[in-house]
Amino acid sequence: MPDVPSPHTHPVRVYWEDTDAGGIVYHASHVRFFERGRTELLRAMGIHQSAHADRSSPDAILFTVRRMEIDYLKPAFLDDALVVETSVLEVGGSRVVLDQRLMRGDQLVAEAKVTVVAVGGNGRPRRIPADMASAFGRLQ
Amino acid sequence: MPDVPSPHTHPVRVYWEDTDAGGIVYHASHVRFFERGRTELLRAMGIHQSAHADRSSPDAILFTVRRMEIDYLKPAFLDDALVVETSVLEVGGSRVVLDQRLMRGDQLVAEAKVTVVAVGGNGRPRRIPADMASAFGRLQ
Amino acid sequence: MPDVPSPHTHPVRVYWEDTDAGGIVYHASHVRFFERGRTELLRAMGIHQSAHADRSSPDAILFTVRRMEIDYLKPAFLDDALVVETSVLEVGGSRVVLDQRLMRGDQLVAEAKVTVVAVGGNGRPRRIPADMASAFGRLQ
Amino acid sequence: MPDVPSPHTHPVRVYWEDTDAGGIVYHASHVRFFERGRTELLRAMGIHQSAHADRSSPDAILFTVRRMEIDYLKPAFLDDALVVETSVLEVGGSRVVLDQRLMRGDQLVAEAKVTVVAVGGNGRPRRIPADMASAFGRLQ
Repeated sequence: MPDVPSPHTHPVRVYWEDTDAGGIVYHASHVRFFERGRTELLRAMGIHQSAHADRSSPDAILFTVRRMEIDYLKPAFLDDALVVETSVLEVGGSRVVLDQRLMRGDQLVAEAKVTVVAVGGNGRPRRIPADMASAFGRLQ
Repeated sequence: MPDVPSPHTHPVRVYWEDTDAGGIVYHASHVRFFERGRTELLRAMGIHQSAHADRSSPDAILFTVRRMEIDYLKPAFLDDALVVETSVLEVGGSRVVLDQRLMRGDQLVAEAKVTVVAVGGNGRPRRIPADMASAFGRLQ
Repeated sequence: MPDVPSPHTHPVRVYWEDTDAGGIVYHASHVRFFERGRTELLRAMGIHQSAHADRSSPDAILFTVRRMEIDYLKPAFLDDALVVETSVLEVGGSRVVLDQRLMRGDQLVAEAKVTVVAVGGNGRPRRIPADMASAFGRLQ
Repeated sequence: MPDVPSPHTHPVRVYWEDTDAGGIVYHASHVRFFERGRTELLRAMGIHQSAHADRSSPDAILFTVRRMEIDYLKPAFLDDALVVETSVLEVGGSRVVLDQRLMRGDQLVAEAKVTVVAVGGNGRPRRIPADMASAFGRLQ
């Protein structure tokens, strides 16, 4: 698997859709931004999630969120150019714990600790293949 | 199929998630509200869309949006108690044209003309069964 | 302030908008559902958030999410009839910690511990008025 | 104002958040994608919408959607790399009619005709300034 520098970074622009009537980014939008960051990290590792949509394949692997902790530190605003930084805290047999930071320049807007679990086509947890696990490991 | 009074009505409350930094309901939220209205109309007719998720069944029928025209007439706001009114304009072999109104009291907030097409499990247009077509017809 | 039974409950129906291509409810949708639960709890307490949009008022009070921990325990699906249960864990000078459960019947779908902070019209933390604080306290 | 080539193009990646349990992009997501395209067009023209949030300014100008017609022609899927193409059909005193196309390679996924109205800080229609109107005109 290709080596990905840690932290992986992914730019996110704030649009009207992401904001609320309080004039700031709605707190569920951060959750979507973090997910985009994880998707782009997987893509950089060569894992295309749509290719795993064929759940009948024994190789199918999907990552579902099992637990999420988010600290909201600064409000974000319309037009902000943000960056999602993602690194790995821990790799287990079927789970990965990620640290994700939403940055505006060098200011920390929000930080998340996200536990994802690898599931197979049947929706049940499965072991992360060794090459994938070591690629995640190199992101620590 | 049970008889549904026309127009079918479905209440919608405006939450923070539906608004944007302009202080009003974001224009894609109306689209979600209209979809809820159509889903509830189908449910009132006895059609549970999740039961059609088994796409291998020859009876599978899903309604996908083919065309939508929306006029945005008045802004809607946080906490507004709105009602989606849905009636039928036209029923064809595999399509239904609906008129949907988003109301706040007797004030028209937005109006949509939505063309949905019945598709089978293979994603291809299919004929709407006769009992369903006549149930839609009674909503005109 | 009116007395609200604890836990406060609010029904949520799952629509297409809440699901993703994995066939289940997208993990940011739970965040929106929990927010609806908190909004309805405030409404039941007589607090209408849109009335606080006039930020120039010295009485303006808005609740913003400072921290959120969510455990995703069971997948939820299209058409599910869920209930958000909200109770209070802790009330501080300017913050409230809530326990929220997303239920499908007696099955726990997800659980959240949410810390909200009261801010004034200037966006800065402010003390929760005594009557409001004791109303929150009765939800413990 | 800077000259923007017509059509203006803006890339959009499809994430889990954009899809639904039917396995395709949810029809309100296209509406969000088109809005991003319009926002980026305005930005390319030098119009930063967040700078107009100060509604007390006599120069404040915001563009709100008055009418939208969308044809959904092909389904879009998770991971798709799409492009929003935006050009101008018509410029009036206070309104602009845009043609927007959502493309996957040379395949037309959806097409929208969107009428936006310029409003001032008071939320009432206002005349589009001459330099802005002629910049829009060059996008025809």
